[in-house]
Amino acid sequence: MIRKLTAAAVGLALASSAVFAASHGGGPFDAAIKARQAHMQLYAHNLGILGGMAKGAMDYNADLATVAATNLATLATLNQMTYWPEGSDSFDNENTAALPKIWDNFPDVAKKGQALAEATAAMQAAAGNGLDALRAAIGPVGEACGACHKAYRKPKE
Amino acid sequence: MIRKLTAAAVGLALASSAVFAASHGGGPFDAAIKARQAHMQLYAHNLGILGGMAKGAMDYNADLATVAATNLATLATLNQMTYWPEGSDSFDNENTAALPKIWDNFPDVAKKGQALAEATAAMQAAAGNGLDALRAAIGPVGEACGACHKAYRKPKE
Repeated sequence: MIRKLTAAAVGLALASSAVFAASHGGGPFDAAIKARQAHMQLYAHNLGILGGMAKGAMDYNADLATVAATNLATLATLNQMTYWPEGSDSFDNENTAALPKIWDNFPDVAKKGQALAEATAAMQAAAGNGLDALRAAIGPVGEACGACHKAYRKPKE
Repeated sequence: MIRKLTAAAVGLALASSAVFAASHGGGPFDAAIKARQAHMQLYAHNLGILGGMAKGAMDYNADLATVAATNLATLATLNQMTYWPEGSDSFDNENTAALPKIWDNFPDVAKKGQALAEATAAMQAAAGNGLDALRAAIGPVGEACGACHKAYRKPKE
């Protein structure tokens, strides 16, 4: 279902990106780039809480872990079609590390997004069940993040 | 239910904010402030699409409107407890306009959050039903945003 929705969304995003960009000020893709970076920021914030507990930097708290994990899983269900218009890549925009090959590999990008949705849903189910359960669930989440970053994000210089 | 959860979340946030801040670099509340600003950015991005259609700056598209409205309504359900630790106000932090009285008026803040959740849920139901339905639903969303900003955000100088 998510894959089907993503494929449909991509078509829409390509069709609407120009008019969408025209309705916003600044660079043509600034609004989209800021939106996806904000989305990543919210992933990082909520995952940071779970990671802090996993490595013992903060005390395990079942309620707080569940809140962070539920936010993470919910964020992974948002539809990002308007965040990734074609042309909003690191070749043509200084303010992004998103490699152009994202737009040549949408089936793989969607697959990696689906992997993140599954890993965060598993974390949502596990986070309140004790520190060991949280620790067991965090590896797949980090792997899902890393798989997409490794393939599609320009390395830092 | 949302109010009850918010009240419980506030207690947790107060208890965990110090250890949470200690686990992040920079100013003690930088991570929380960045997170809530990212959240606002995502509200603005998705509402901007609906607003663009409402005022005729972009063509009405039922699918795109539904995507943006669903994102908006889903974002309004996220638990923001870790985004608003006590002390992360505009008196003690240059990088936020959040007035200290937020932390003295949590029942009212929660009520305003609930109003936003209801207005965005109504928008989610309406957005795909034509431009008139979208236009009718956007006023209450803007009012819910504005009610909280007017009461709790430092005016721009």
